[in-house]
Amino acid sequence: MAIQKPTLPKGTRDFGPLDLQKRKSIIKNIEDVFKKYGFMPLETPAMENLSTLEGKYGEEGDKLLYRILNSGNFLQSYKDSTDYTNAIDNIEGKDIVKYIAEKGLRYDLTVPFARYVVMNRSQLVFPFKRYQIQPVWRADRPQKGRYREFWQCDADIVGSESLINELDLISIYHDVFTQLKINYELRVNNRKILAGIAEVVKSIDYITTIAVAIDKLDKIGEEGVRKELAESAFTESELNTLFEIIKSKGNNQFILENLKDKLKTSETGTKGVEELSFLLQNIENCNRATNNAVNLKLDFSLARGLSYYTGCIFEVTALDSSLMSSIGGGGRYDNLTENFGLPNVSGVGISFGLDRIYDVMEELNLFSASIRTTQSKILCCFFDEKSQEYCLPAVTKLRAVGIAAEIYPDVNRKKAIVKQLDYANALQIPFAAIAGENEINQNVFTLKNLLTGEQNTLKLDDIIQMLKE
Amino acid sequence: MAIQKPTLPKGTRDFGPLDLQKRKSIIKNIEDVFKKYGFMPLETPAMENLSTLEGKYGEEGDKLLYRILNSGNFLQSYKDSTDYTNAIDNIEGKDIVKYIAEKGLRYDLTVPFARYVVMNRSQLVFPFKRYQIQPVWRADRPQKGRYREFWQCDADIVGSESLINELDLISIYHDVFTQLKINYELRVNNRKILAGIAEVVKSIDYITTIAVAIDKLDKIGEEGVRKELAESAFTESELNTLFEIIKSKGNNQFILENLKDKLKTSETGTKGVEELSFLLQNIENCNRATNNAVNLKLDFSLARGLSYYTGCIFEVTALDSSLMSSIGGGGRYDNLTENFGLPNVSGVGISFGLDRIYDVMEELNLFSASIRTTQSKILCCFFDEKSQEYCLPAVTKLRAVGIAAEIYPDVNRKKAIVKQLDYANALQIPFAAIAGENEINQNVFTLKNLLTGEQNTLKLDDIIQMLKE
Repeated sequence: MAIQKPTLPKGTRDFGPLDLQKRKSIIKNIEDVFKKYGFMPLETPAMENLSTLEGKYGEEGDKLLYRILNSGNFLQSYKDSTDYTNAIDNIEGKDIVKYIAEKGLRYDLTVPFARYVVMNRSQLVFPFKRYQIQPVWRADRPQKGRYREFWQCDADIVGSESLINELDLISIYHDVFTQLKINYELRVNNRKILAGIAEVVKSIDYITTIAVAIDKLDKIGEEGVRKELAESAFTESELNTLFEIIKSKGNNQFILENLKDKLKTSETGTKGVEELSFLLQNIENCNRATNNAVNLKLDFSLARGLSYYTGCIFEVTALDSSLMSSIGGGGRYDNLTENFGLPNVSGVGISFGLDRIYDVMEELNLFSASIRTTQSKILCCFFDEKSQEYCLPAVTKLRAVGIAAEIYPDVNRKKAIVKQLDYANALQIPFAAIAGENEINQNVFTLKNLLTGEQNTLKLDDIIQMLKE
Repeated sequence: MAIQKPTLPKGTRDFGPLDLQKRKSIIKNIEDVFKKYGFMPLETPAMENLSTLEGKYGEEGDKLLYRILNSGNFLQSYKDSTDYTNAIDNIEGKDIVKYIAEKGLRYDLTVPFARYVVMNRSQLVFPFKRYQIQPVWRADRPQKGRYREFWQCDADIVGSESLINELDLISIYHDVFTQLKINYELRVNNRKILAGIAEVVKSIDYITTIAVAIDKLDKIGEEGVRKELAESAFTESELNTLFEIIKSKGNNQFILENLKDKLKTSETGTKGVEELSFLLQNIENCNRATNNAVNLKLDFSLARGLSYYTGCIFEVTALDSSLMSSIGGGGRYDNLTENFGLPNVSGVGISFGLDRIYDVMEELNLFSASIRTTQSKILCCFFDEKSQEYCLPAVTKLRAVGIAAEIYPDVNRKKAIVKQLDYANALQIPFAAIAGENEINQNVFTLKNLLTGEQNTLKLDDIIQMLKE
């Protein structure tokens, strides 16, 4: 076989020791919080039937699905089909794809979760609170912060319409980002408020038009949004009413009172205001009880692919970072499992974008300095066969009491110790235990602190005692 | 969209809360031991370029690779190729696969590791000790204990020829299986001994013939192996010599002395005996130092796809299980990174089969009874809006001090408490805190132990105190 220079597929990454330990530290944080709130873990296969995935993510999503070629002579089932045309010139990929690929890679964690709930509904206890932390794959154009393999960390509750679930999810965001020391902003909106706005401004039929337009407020500004909506026959006066509502300023209480008044003619809108009021009031009560500072920012322009959500909508951004895109989001939906034959199951969920959180923490230098490439606390160094024989049981003893320890495996008799200490320094192993002729005779080790250079002669038991502290 | 009954791709599984917690308990055990021995984590992408994967697992392996269909109009690059034939009738899948699929799913953890080492060699500190715990995918026929998505847990050291690495790996097997309470047998052989046997019995040219035949000893018995080798022109006397060596009985010391004598005319064989002697002697020394009982079973018929290994060969089976296949294995190899342009890097590694270990532990009932579907310790129950308002800050306080707590989100005024206690019982949540009119007035909760039925009236702080203990 010819020698090849290996590469990685575009948009994918290896995670080496240090990167991975940092990622794991984020995951552990999120997972511990999920558990503290009573969420239970779920993992689904990387491969799903395409019948499960297709049609769930819109036309654009279908294009971004990774499809897996059937095994064996995959062309045969096309040849056997009624669509069969013998000349390849007359065929395009999309004409034969359904015959040659039955499976695809997981595109998000929500659809597999819905499939799981439907398949296991008779065994599950509802409300069912699950979390799921797994990679997903999208054939998107890779760019800074956007990968073809990336991780999602989701928590959802299905089978309950209570706003207490929204409260829990908001509190989860707070706990996670506070522990990670990320200064965040959690923006909240409600589909019912968007509906109310549409009703009051023009008519409920315009909810999508309005939502799509105002969702771009950040990017194209008020002028841009006005221009776009003017093209959809919005009058100057309608647009003024709209911006009066969504640009309302003040504290949350004031903004909400104002909104309540503006939407009083809309039943749906009033319901939306009540839902947000419930959240704000209870957050305040709980903050008071625990000296927490959970905080929401009302943002009536937030839509997040409206068609999906039916109630609250969340989005989180990191405040001090140059990364503008969201590091989390979610909301309430009522039709998640309907596609799979289980209608009327209400759910609400949030997602953490692991890769973006990682990027933010790297940028802001938020990872604990104690995260090292290796956990090893001590390297046992030896010169020759005799000290090797002396060191091997020692390293076994260290490990037996739970201390991460290594013995350098190879001995170059000339520069043995230099090489071994180089290894320890490169991996930031804090201590080296050295055993030469003298040490062996006295049944001790020379313990070198590689940070300070300090050396002491110690018995193994004393080294164990010291490292365990 | 028509309603569909969702299914999972054949050979794949969902892991629900209880299964997954059990699997995570195994992984945590393995990972903690890996770390204790100085191994560092690595994760590689699910997708690799097919050029990285193909040709590395033999012809059979190439067939079992999952290939990912290129995005867009994937047929075009075939149409543009010199292999192009317009009539589909004249084409089979294998003729066009290289034009329509560039990427494949990870088939094992070893080849991606080799690729990683080659791509990152200038940054890595050698010897490089990495562990990797990830799923792999094979388009194999699914059967009991064999899945199309399954997990491997690998630890490898590259860049060191020292047998101390083999000692570490043997000790890792011991630590993991002892902690998991799996009664295991670790069989060990050495490629050099197999070479020596071939030399002594007939000639080194027959090493593969012999290895392939005696590897089947378990399945086809001595008679079967004799018959197979007789067909390769082995004489009765040669076969007698062979079986005298591989069937040698007694303690390890005796067997090895015997082997040493038998292989004395083979330089390679003698080297193999020395290597095993080194392992046995040092294991004995370390056992003595720590009261461990690490044990090897010499098995000169063990080959494990010989072509791969160049030194020690390991295989682990669970002794009390009906599962006959191995739950772990590995060995030393010298040519792992050669395919990717980096020759002369010696490595040694082991793998744990997570799915099989899980099956063994389920069969033998070895999982800790403390593994539950949820971590929640307490459910706060309420009757109406007033008690909800009383309970919400309480559950926030419980979580703030790190106690996994839930509040049941929905209230059916008629049978509120029954439904909530049903939920707690179904999820084995051990305590329920109930707050009615009286409790609220006295600023207490009725705490119900759901295991014993015992009830007490307690202040929240006392509940916290009790649950933290």
